[in-house]
Amino acid sequence: MTKLLIEALERRPVGRRPLWIMRQAGRYLPEYQQLRAKHDFKALATSAELATEVTLLPLRRFPLDAAIVFADIMSPLPALGVEFDFAPGPVVASPIGSAADVARLPPPDPARLAPEVLAALTSARRALPDHVALLGFCGAPWTLAAYLVEGKGVKDFPTLRAFAQREPRALDALLAKLAALMAEYLIAQHRAGADAVQIFDSWAGVLSLPDWETSIRPHLHSLLATVGAAGVPRILFVQNAPHLMEAYASLPCEALACDWRIDIADLKKRHGATRAVQGNLDPAILLAGPAATRRAAERLLASVDAAGHIVNLGHGILPKTPLESVAALVETVHNERIRRSSNES
Amino acid sequence: MTKLLIEALERRPVGRRPLWIMRQAGRYLPEYQQLRAKHDFKALATSAELATEVTLLPLRRFPLDAAIVFADIMSPLPALGVEFDFAPGPVVASPIGSAADVARLPPPDPARLAPEVLAALTSARRALPDHVALLGFCGAPWTLAAYLVEGKGVKDFPTLRAFAQREPRALDALLAKLAALMAEYLIAQHRAGADAVQIFDSWAGVLSLPDWETSIRPHLHSLLATVGAAGVPRILFVQNAPHLMEAYASLPCEALACDWRIDIADLKKRHGATRAVQGNLDPAILLAGPAATRRAAERLLASVDAAGHIVNLGHGILPKTPLESVAALVETVHNERIRRSSNES
Repeated sequence: MTKLLIEALERRPVGRRPLWIMRQAGRYLPEYQQLRAKHDFKALATSAELATEVTLLPLRRFPLDAAIVFADIMSPLPALGVEFDFAPGPVVASPIGSAADVARLPPPDPARLAPEVLAALTSARRALPDHVALLGFCGAPWTLAAYLVEGKGVKDFPTLRAFAQREPRALDALLAKLAALMAEYLIAQHRAGADAVQIFDSWAGVLSLPDWETSIRPHLHSLLATVGAAGVPRILFVQNAPHLMEAYASLPCEALACDWRIDIADLKKRHGATRAVQGNLDPAILLAGPAATRRAAERLLASVDAAGHIVNLGHGILPKTPLESVAALVETVHNERIRRSSNES
Repeated sequence: MTKLLIEALERRPVGRRPLWIMRQAGRYLPEYQQLRAKHDFKALATSAELATEVTLLPLRRFPLDAAIVFADIMSPLPALGVEFDFAPGPVVASPIGSAADVARLPPPDPARLAPEVLAALTSARRALPDHVALLGFCGAPWTLAAYLVEGKGVKDFPTLRAFAQREPRALDALLAKLAALMAEYLIAQHRAGADAVQIFDSWAGVLSLPDWETSIRPHLHSLLATVGAAGVPRILFVQNAPHLMEAYASLPCEALACDWRIDIADLKKRHGATRAVQGNLDPAILLAGPAATRRAAERLLASVDAAGHIVNLGHGILPKTPLESVAALVETVHNERIRRSSNES
């Protein structure tokens, strides 16, 4: 059976647009809250059985077109000898502060490349109906380096930016290691059952475009090219970085995912001939209830060409989101009548 | 005696570019740390005498071209009956959550419009040499509303964005009140001794451009127009909002201040005929030491036309900045030999 999300990634004309929701297996779901009352986040993310269960939760409630494996972007980093905890975001035991720290990272250990995530992908793929796509994911090299150097999530990552200025060669070496490891990780996720993968670059926006070109582009390009050569469909997500959107659009991928700061209709006009687009409702709209959600979703559908558009939020769904808003979003996307337009390719 | 910063605001040819540093009276200064060991932030910000002392501190160490009054963006809000504390950022006692909360705000009380800030401006102006400009400032209406609705600084301000979606009319009423109050506040600062004022819009970037046009523009325009009509030179600073920069450039002001994400040379090329520009070194560069600072400052000076350029960082100076980096920045700006170019107006 065909998967709507994969058809959209290939920019084929579709009967309706596919929909999934970033962080759809998250705190807005009462079932997730119940599981979290029994297990802490680390327990959920490191047990293949629990991670499978969480991955499937949102699909039991809503007819979404994709499941995304429940894991943390830090999950594969034990393969580089990195230890971390959650409080509640990732906190790295020994942040990287020097070229020596980078040199000291051990060669990647494939046995520690998140075997629990790979196992969860295989079980989730077995449990999911054929028409639902299963997504793997990873953090982009810069976004992972942000946590490794800063030690945790800190507004604007000043320690990371200073490290980039002071130790450009060490940063380059670190990003190269991370890019190679993430390519291996995404390909392993595909083999384990992921139909496509999403690369999350959450913190690139703290750099200017010239610094991005020097520091980030080569490594992100290498990661995407390696994964693409292995035949894995790629969704590239960048947020809070409108000044870098055109640079991301020049990277090899099947879909560009953007946040609500971006004019996604315009993005699709400019790049829709070669890329699908994904997004980009402001998650805050869903907090305002089902009527506001329906209006915003209708505006989005009316403004963006259907073929090659995967509907999603522009960032993770917020913990206080009413379930009725999610239902309204699903209903609006399912009820759309798509007319063939001359823009469909 | 002429003030270099005011000449730059008027886009006159200058012998060298003026320089000041956002948060120049801050934690990187040992003298400030010593004062903070004796007094908490609130005590410093609410005593005219201590605020004057802090305002003058950086000028005692570095030959900067402006002092900026030491205050918090929340300082004028007691005039609207708003109570808050610092922990360490502003925490509002009773956040605004409904249209009724907005309606309940009392009429502005001029007696509580930060008299300590106005007094500090008058004393600082007396103490400063004539050639050093004194700056007043305020938070832009949206940025103040961010704290009032969210209650404190929270990544991406989801409660504020939800309020904007759910209660657009209440938000509009709140922003109108804040714009009127801030206009009054900036004019009072000018009368008290400020040669020019800076309006800080720190959190506008969480909105898309269409939402910015609807929610923010009318109120920011009204604030800027009122202050301009009173003859007060205006520096408009927006950060982490590259998708809104052109919209800000269309607002009435004497100078556009931007962060390091923006190509300031390009900004000046496009708007330099009608606006000065201010900025925009990445504060993280200074953490990398004086050599890195000198290189980056030289690149900035080489790329941006001198007339109508106020040198500054793209955001507040970071607490761990070495004093040697600040000295290197001052020296680089002071040593520049400016050649008359055909671009000078």
